[in-house]
Amino acid sequence: MNILLAAGGPISKWPDIETNYDLYVGVDRGSFFLQQKGLPLDVAVGDFDSLDSQEQTDVFDLAKKVITSPAEKDDTDTQLALEMVLKEYPNAKITIVGSTGGRIDHFLANLWIVLEPRFAKYCQNIYLQDRQNTIAFLLPGEHTITKEVDKQYLAYCCLTPVSDLTLTKSKYTLDNQQVLYPTSYASNEFMGSQAGVTFSKGIIAVIQSKDG
Amino acid sequence: MNILLAAGGPISKWPDIETNYDLYVGVDRGSFFLQQKGLPLDVAVGDFDSLDSQEQTDVFDLAKKVITSPAEKDDTDTQLALEMVLKEYPNAKITIVGSTGGRIDHFLANLWIVLEPRFAKYCQNIYLQDRQNTIAFLLPGEHTITKEVDKQYLAYCCLTPVSDLTLTKSKYTLDNQQVLYPTSYASNEFMGSQAGVTFSKGIIAVIQSKDG
Repeated sequence: MNILLAAGGPISKWPDIETNYDLYVGVDRGSFFLQQKGLPLDVAVGDFDSLDSQEQTDVFDLAKKVITSPAEKDDTDTQLALEMVLKEYPNAKITIVGSTGGRIDHFLANLWIVLEPRFAKYCQNIYLQDRQNTIAFLLPGEHTITKEVDKQYLAYCCLTPVSDLTLTKSKYTLDNQQVLYPTSYASNEFMGSQAGVTFSKGIIAVIQSKDG
Repeated sequence: MNILLAAGGPISKWPDIETNYDLYVGVDRGSFFLQQKGLPLDVAVGDFDSLDSQEQTDVFDLAKKVITSPAEKDDTDTQLALEMVLKEYPNAKITIVGSTGGRIDHFLANLWIVLEPRFAKYCQNIYLQDRQNTIAFLLPGEHTITKEVDKQYLAYCCLTPVSDLTLTKSKYTLDNQQVLYPTSYASNEFMGSQAGVTFSKGIIAVIQSKDG
């Protein structure tokens, strides 16, 4: 089960969207962007107050299902959408686009969503993607990272303190590093098609990227 | 003493740059962007291997001083530049542009630079800025945040666990919240020209932003 979740960040930063997702979920303005791109819209979630009335009409016409959230709430629309999707499809692979490139408070909310206990256990099935970057998330353990063909750089961004960080099969390696605060080990590179990472505590965002 | 530090992120995301900085420092490709914008270039720092030979010539012609870093090193060029600037001007206000909008591993390295013990004590003098966002950093204590006239939204992004977070004089308030992991309290708003924030432990990024 492959799910696309389209948040409201600038459409100019979106990657090319494949048309073989099993479910297309639009989050607020993301619903309108899916409509603009000619993509399906299975579920639209949001308060939709970022859309004018014509845009709302377009979205509501296209959406198979609309879930209206209150304008003032504790959760963001992306949190609501993710919770809804995981409740119904806990094993799905979820790709989130439109989560980068605009307001940085929004981006950080999206990046850190996996630190919440309700989402952390699912983090290895969640990906944030834009034209230049793919962000995957790792829980403690031993992992193999497979190179994306169009990406040049590899980074290990420790979102929390991380224990015993070991990086192998990459240009720069680490051996049992104790990471005391969030740190971006940026600009690493694959040596072959796969790289290795092991750690015993914390959550890591693995970012594959290319120059713009 | 007001210092502009221009990193190599996309020039399309830069804010309008004032011409009254006391020192203009270019970091690698940021030096070339300063030259392109017709701005001064007092110091150019970097390995400059992201520039072709004509771009290098242009930069070296304009720069009053060039500091060449090795291509493979532990610190990023931005870390090197910041360390150099703080050594000479420990009380300067430092505005960093070109730190957002491209590769996310670079952005996170720039965002988290203030968590390093060597930089943390200076964090309240460091600002990251682009067209849509201004990021300031706070150490524990009682603070007053002054609204920027062109910004609509206010966010408190806890880069670390934060103790006793209290938000006042804003649309959404908090009272002695214990924040256990990095969290973006996004989309808050000023009620007047100033908002209040108090906390006893951790580091917070305060982001003022506007829609794109």
